[in-house]
Amino acid sequence: MLNLYGSEISGVEEELNEGIGKTMVIDRLSTDLSMLKVLFPFVSYIKIGWGLAFLTDTNSLIHRISQIKSYGIGVSNGGTFLETCFVRGKFEKGLNLLKNSGFNYIEISEGVCNIPKKERKIAAEFAKSNDLILIMEVGKKRIAEQLTLNETIDKISEAQEFEPDTIIIEGRETGKGVEIYDELGNIKWDWADSILECISLEKVMFEAPLEKQQVELILRYGKEINLGNVSVDSVASLASQRLSLRGDTFSMDKHMEVFEGSPATKFVLHIIKNSIKIDQGSLISATGLSRRTVQNALTELIDSGLIQENTDIRDLRRKIYSFIR
Amino acid sequence: MLNLYGSEISGVEEELNEGIGKTMVIDRLSTDLSMLKVLFPFVSYIKIGWGLAFLTDTNSLIHRISQIKSYGIGVSNGGTFLETCFVRGKFEKGLNLLKNSGFNYIEISEGVCNIPKKERKIAAEFAKSNDLILIMEVGKKRIAEQLTLNETIDKISEAQEFEPDTIIIEGRETGKGVEIYDELGNIKWDWADSILECISLEKVMFEAPLEKQQVELILRYGKEINLGNVSVDSVASLASQRLSLRGDTFSMDKHMEVFEGSPATKFVLHIIKNSIKIDQGSLISATGLSRRTVQNALTELIDSGLIQENTDIRDLRRKIYSFIR
Amino acid sequence: MLNLYGSEISGVEEELNEGIGKTMVIDRLSTDLSMLKVLFPFVSYIKIGWGLAFLTDTNSLIHRISQIKSYGIGVSNGGTFLETCFVRGKFEKGLNLLKNSGFNYIEISEGVCNIPKKERKIAAEFAKSNDLILIMEVGKKRIAEQLTLNETIDKISEAQEFEPDTIIIEGRETGKGVEIYDELGNIKWDWADSILECISLEKVMFEAPLEKQQVELILRYGKEINLGNVSVDSVASLASQRLSLRGDTFSMDKHMEVFEGSPATKFVLHIIKNSIKIDQGSLISATGLSRRTVQNALTELIDSGLIQENTDIRDLRRKIYSFIR
Repeated sequence: MLNLYGSEISGVEEELNEGIGKTMVIDRLSTDLSMLKVLFPFVSYIKIGWGLAFLTDTNSLIHRISQIKSYGIGVSNGGTFLETCFVRGKFEKGLNLLKNSGFNYIEISEGVCNIPKKERKIAAEFAKSNDLILIMEVGKKRIAEQLTLNETIDKISEAQEFEPDTIIIEGRETGKGVEIYDELGNIKWDWADSILECISLEKVMFEAPLEKQQVELILRYGKEINLGNVSVDSVASLASQRLSLRGDTFSMDKHMEVFEGSPATKFVLHIIKNSIKIDQGSLISATGLSRRTVQNALTELIDSGLIQENTDIRDLRRKIYSFIR
Repeated sequence: MLNLYGSEISGVEEELNEGIGKTMVIDRLSTDLSMLKVLFPFVSYIKIGWGLAFLTDTNSLIHRISQIKSYGIGVSNGGTFLETCFVRGKFEKGLNLLKNSGFNYIEISEGVCNIPKKERKIAAEFAKSNDLILIMEVGKKRIAEQLTLNETIDKISEAQEFEPDTIIIEGRETGKGVEIYDELGNIKWDWADSILECISLEKVMFEAPLEKQQVELILRYGKEINLGNVSVDSVASLASQRLSLRGDTFSMDKHMEVFEGSPATKFVLHIIKNSIKIDQGSLISATGLSRRTVQNALTELIDSGLIQENTDIRDLRRKIYSFIR
Repeated sequence: MLNLYGSEISGVEEELNEGIGKTMVIDRLSTDLSMLKVLFPFVSYIKIGWGLAFLTDTNSLIHRISQIKSYGIGVSNGGTFLETCFVRGKFEKGLNLLKNSGFNYIEISEGVCNIPKKERKIAAEFAKSNDLILIMEVGKKRIAEQLTLNETIDKISEAQEFEPDTIIIEGRETGKGVEIYDELGNIKWDWADSILECISLEKVMFEAPLEKQQVELILRYGKEINLGNVSVDSVASLASQRLSLRGDTFSMDKHMEVFEGSPATKFVLHIIKNSIKIDQGSLISATGLSRRTVQNALTELIDSGLIQENTDIRDLRRKIYSFIR
């Protein structure tokens, strides 16, 4: 890809395929695909959501899939597709239909019902022998059926036995009250950290439908993180964030010599920049970092003259931190 | 419509035109119509919102309308169009312009101002003699002018005299603080139930802009319910829900033999599945069902082993219900 | 532009280019431009957001820009583009690249970093000598770096020295916690008023991403107000509001002889119509008008029989106002 901006100013061109995480985009069938002419370099694969493959007539579906693939972008079913097939006793038939329609990614999920190991094994072998990319999703859709963190980690280990290309952590399209997200869509950092202790950054993808979630995951784990359930409208925004070309991630930029600290320190700085005033306890819960890491970051930032420490006049035992403009 | 998925696995094909309610989609003129190539089977008619017909140049408007109709989809004006004409003393001129531009649905509303019976009669006769489909809307747009439930029902009766094809209940594009929706967009079930006592399910359409509202109305009244003010982006999602191909409505599916209860019992089960723990009072207000119906549903669900009843440890007189995974 | 509706009923045609403010639309690259065929008369210029110009390959970018310009619509960079160039020591190179790609609007902002006067002068002269339209933006993106009202006004004065075509007040894409918007996206009317005391309505543009903000700014300052960061999906809605063809602004319409009061009185009436019951204090804070102006408006509205004054039964010293249906 030639880009006179990229090559002459930003260095973006060289970076494009260097260490950028995968982006999975959700297709609601309401977008004209011509936007891919511009956006294709920033989309790894497109998921035709839920059971939508049942709804489109065969010719339209095959045509849409081949259009997407012509941009070098993969196409996956939504997990609900194979769950529906399983419930109706037609799991293998479903796999064949996906292959015959041109899907080159196969996603197996257990969002609504459980799929026995036997069927998951069949799917894994089917993918392997047909050169399809295998995706497995962990997590439940309904609130009352949510997994605990330990169950999530067990399910990840279990999925790894099938050697999928990527394991997705369920985030739904709302990004709320599911797996790593609380009811308001805030990230439970202890969950995200624990998950990343048992699976490498390249092998896991977090569904992150809200742009706020995308920004925070990039700030915390770097532009390498794989993100899914991204809406078509968010693709350009997400690419901008990954390449530090939007306000929120601007300061992450390796070309900007304003501040060279560890990722943890940069994350603390980001939170302080986006707050009026904040104390240590709030910083710990906002970043999910340990008390010690936050304290080290604060010391480093104060020494660099980037932030200041003050006594809270309403509670003299409390220190508050703010950015020095 | 041929769909190898539909016919071979889901049985969706046969269902498509069987008992699926009407879907009215709102057009903001910002979407390329090529998406209709795939989505047309799930759209009954498109409403060109508010007074937008005034804003487009005549040729573009006529072209857009004929494009939409070429998919077998109807086209309606937004109610504000004829209200504007009325206020300017050009009601009949407005009707003629709609017909001449190709609209085949005519909507008469009183969202902002009142239209006298005489004009509504003129419109009804105009529609009849020109083979146009007549739609009448009940409800006010502004908060301070909201109708009471009784006024709503009176207005529905009044509208029925004109024998419209469908009566729409106002929901605006926000779905909040109007008719059956409270300020947060929650459904006031006593309103919805009372409305459905005085008009049949086929003759009424609820504007339901939020996907959460669409899911709950389908769960409560079935896939037959007519829904309006659906955004282009929600069309595929709504069709998935109606055909039980998304998480929320998955368990409604007639092919899934997991649980065969009455609609009321399924609705109670859905609410329990989407809660951590819930008591009887909350179930009654969340479903709008009578205490007795909720109690019967709970007994049936406990007997089926799907839910459990526990004593609330914080209040020993209170029973709480939760889903058994 | 010919519009049989416009010319025969609404008088919209004559109004279209009469006193309508500018509309700047933000491009996320995910929309097919064919929608401009219908919407072009309502878009003044399109901003290719943030650093997106870095992300698109050169040919696609040049093609997109020339497509937009073929509708008579201008094209601007997002401010972050030149900030990125500046940080990398390539500010002038950036200006040349914009010109060579076909941009005919140049936006200079200081959303993330400060641009010295010298560079701003270079940009202003570059724009002038190349017949490009100069746009300067005032405001900071990050919460901790927000300007005070006085700093905002100082920055506006400073920008005026460069004689830009328009000065934009930062509103981000969220419309929250930035310049004239509080954390919930409500308008701080004292800010907006003070800004308009030091710069004329034609020379300033408020970024107003939320439709609620667009409606309130139009109600307060008239359809002449310039609005930016409008999403593609909101273009038709905004045009409807400006031309009084949607519910919220319907009563502003000069053709509707229901009520002929001052703008301030109409604004008070709008707030009362959109409340159940409201007292004087709340009216003052909701409109940002002075106590005296609100009192005069209330007297006028009561005399016209449009609203009523009652004693609050929960606090007998308090008067509450409501609309008479």
